[in-house]
Amino acid sequence: MRLAPDPTGKWSEPEYVAAVTDLLGVVAYGELQAFHRISADASMAPDLGANASVSQMAVNEFHQFTRLRDYMLGRGLDPAQAMQPFVASIDDFHASTAPNDWLEGLVKVYVGDGIADDFYAEISRYVDPQTGELIRSVTADRGQVEFVVYTVREAIEQDPRVAGRLALWGRRLVGEAVSQAQRVAVDRDAMTHLLAGDSGADLAEISRLFARMTDNHQARMAALGLNA
Amino acid sequence: MRLAPDPTGKWSEPEYVAAVTDLLGVVAYGELQAFHRISADASMAPDLGANASVSQMAVNEFHQFTRLRDYMLGRGLDPAQAMQPFVASIDDFHASTAPNDWLEGLVKVYVGDGIADDFYAEISRYVDPQTGELIRSVTADRGQVEFVVYTVREAIEQDPRVAGRLALWGRRLVGEAVSQAQRVAVDRDAMTHLLAGDSGADLAEISRLFARMTDNHQARMAALGLNA
Repeated sequence: MRLAPDPTGKWSEPEYVAAVTDLLGVVAYGELQAFHRISADASMAPDLGANASVSQMAVNEFHQFTRLRDYMLGRGLDPAQAMQPFVASIDDFHASTAPNDWLEGLVKVYVGDGIADDFYAEISRYVDPQTGELIRSVTADRGQVEFVVYTVREAIEQDPRVAGRLALWGRRLVGEAVSQAQRVAVDRDAMTHLLAGDSGADLAEISRLFARMTDNHQARMAALGLNA
Repeated sequence: MRLAPDPTGKWSEPEYVAAVTDLLGVVAYGELQAFHRISADASMAPDLGANASVSQMAVNEFHQFTRLRDYMLGRGLDPAQAMQPFVASIDDFHASTAPNDWLEGLVKVYVGDGIADDFYAEISRYVDPQTGELIRSVTADRGQVEFVVYTVREAIEQDPRVAGRLALWGRRLVGEAVSQAQRVAVDRDAMTHLLAGDSGADLAEISRLFARMTDNHQARMAALGLNA
C-alpha cells in the first residue's frame, strides 16, 4: 500500500508519529469494541425492529473502525500494534459498565458515543489536517440517535421512576470513562503531550476542554430527559 | 414505500405470498442472528487482526439482512412479522451450538454459511425470478472464507488432535441444523408446500436435494481438513 502524502511534514517527527499513532489506535480500538458491545446490547431489544436499529449503529462503528485501520495502513502503521496499548483500558471500561438491560444499553451508546465524539472533535484540532479530518468524520455517521432519544424518553414517560435509575447510570458511565482516560493519560506520554504541550499554560486549556465536555454531556442527558 | 413490480403475477396468489413471506422471513432472521453470533464469536479471536476479519463477516451478514428487510418492505410485507415464526428454531439452533472456542466458532461460520447458501440456492429455483435473484445474491458477499480455511488448516497442522474434535463438532452442527429444519417444515405448511409441491413424486426431488446438500457439506469439511 502506498503511503499517504504528508504536506505538513509532521509525519517526519518521531514524537508526532508516536502521538498520532496512539490517537488513531485508541479511536480505532474504541470503535471496534463499540461494534462488539453494541451488537451484543442489540440482542436485548424488546422487538426485532429495535434490534435492527441498534445493530445498524454497531455496524456503523465497525465501518469507522475500518476507515481508521485503512488510514493507518496507508501511513505505514501497524493497526494491531497501535491499538494494543488501549485494549486493557477500553476492555475494563466496558467490563465495569455492562448494561443490565435494554435501556441502560441505549443510554450507554448515546452517552458513550457523545463523549467519544466530543473528545475526537477536541483532539482533531491538535493533529495534521488529514488526520484531523478523518477523526472528525468518524463522528459523522452515528445515525439512529433519534431512535435512542425517542425510546428512552418514552420509557421515562411510561414509568417516571426509570429516570432516577438511568441518571445514576449516566453518572457512572462518565465516572468510569474519566477514570480510564486518566489511566491512558498517565501511561501514554506522547499522546498526552500532544494535547497538553510542554508549557504549564496549556493546563488551563485542558480544564476548559473538560468543562466543554461536561457541558455537552449534561446537554445530552437533558435530551434524554435525565439529570446529569 | 412503493411496491415492487410483479411481472409473474405470483404475488397475487395468497398461498404463494404466505410461502415466500416465510422464506424471506427465515432467511432474514437467519442473517440477523448470524450477525449477532459471529460478532460475539469474533471476540474470541486470538489477535485484533483475526477479530477484524471475523467481525467483517458479521457485518456482511447484517448487510444481507438489510437487503432482505428492504425487499420485504418493498413488497408491503412486515419484516418483523415475517421473521417471528422462526425466532424459536433459529435461537434454539444457536443455543445448542454455542462454540466453546475460537476454532469451533470458525468452523460454525464456515459450515453454517455453507449449509445456508446451499439451501438458498435450492429454494431460489422455486420462487419468482426477482425473489430468487435476491436470495441467490445473499450468498455472494460471504468473503473472508479463505481466512477461515487457512486458520483451521493451520491449527490442525500444529496439533492434529484438533481435527477429531472439530470433525465431531461439524457433525453436531449438521445434526442440530437438520433437527431445527424439520421443526420448521412441520410448523410452516405453506413454505414446505412450495418446496415439496402437492404430488408425491416431488419427495424424490427433496431427497435428491438433501443428498446434494450432504455432498456439499462433506466437500466443505474436506476443505477444512476434516472428515465429515
